[in-house]
Amino acid sequence: MTEQDKQFMIEAIQLSRNGMQNNEGGPFGAIVVKDGKIVGRGNNKVTSSNDPTAHAEVTAIRDACKNLGTFQLDDCIIYSSCEPCPMCLGAIYWARPKKLYFACSREDAANINFDDDFIYKEIPLPIDQRQIPTAQIMQEKGVEVFNEWAAKEDKKEY
Amino acid sequence: MTEQDKQFMIEAIQLSRNGMQNNEGGPFGAIVVKDGKIVGRGNNKVTSSNDPTAHAEVTAIRDACKNLGTFQLDDCIIYSSCEPCPMCLGAIYWARPKKLYFACSREDAANINFDDDFIYKEIPLPIDQRQIPTAQIMQEKGVEVFNEWAAKEDKKEY
Repeated sequence: MTEQDKQFMIEAIQLSRNGMQNNEGGPFGAIVVKDGKIVGRGNNKVTSSNDPTAHAEVTAIRDACKNLGTFQLDDCIIYSSCEPCPMCLGAIYWARPKKLYFACSREDAANINFDDDFIYKEIPLPIDQRQIPTAQIMQEKGVEVFNEWAAKEDKKEY
Repeated sequence: MTEQDKQFMIEAIQLSRNGMQNNEGGPFGAIVVKDGKIVGRGNNKVTSSNDPTAHAEVTAIRDACKNLGTFQLDDCIIYSSCEPCPMCLGAIYWARPKKLYFACSREDAANINFDDDFIYKEIPLPIDQRQIPTAQIMQEKGVEVFNEWAAKEDKKEY
């Protein structure tokens, strides 16, 4: 951990505190850094924006992508005040930054009644063992569109 | 699968096709249904909106929550044209619908070069074995804010 890493994490933690104090949502903050500069900021806004996906990391990734005009965070570092939940970790994989730092753990989040740890346990389970009843239907009809995608010549891949 | 389930899935698959044909993003669509009515729609808009989190399910959940004025999809059913990736599955857990149907599998998605299956394999790995280098720093500073949250009297939990 460099002095710069420390300063960036202090900034992410400060966002977690500000968002909480302003009643925007849970106590979570994140920033995206590229070439030593902050290019995106986010804090949890679930309850204030009626958006269950408005976690700190998702919000910071969206902000950074908007600011950079891209859907890929190449060469970026994400600093999050807490270990990303599976949704946010998935978002991070899709955004493809080069590195991730976090402060609090998923167990720390569970201690203040957030479901992160529970969701981490659900994701790897076979579908018929998960708590949200789930069923696969009409696979063949769905795959028709995937085949159309495979054959599409002007597609933008990611 | 009821006839109604079939009709709703046809709608989700049609959204996947429309979004692809309009070059909005990948071939993925989803809808949210409550009391037999569609309350949210979404298709993948990653490349057209420069938002790596704009998957069909996330977009549909955000639309439904906006329309219903809530951050919880109680008693809702989600129909997705493809098995949700871990980001979307996490979003679904946070939104807490009562049921999930999907058509294509994660393997079908992998066959047309989407990373869903890869990310499913990464999420359960110990942090030091994942492909995005990850480190925990400054846990103590982060937990200070969690303790402030625990002690906060006017917080809105979710």
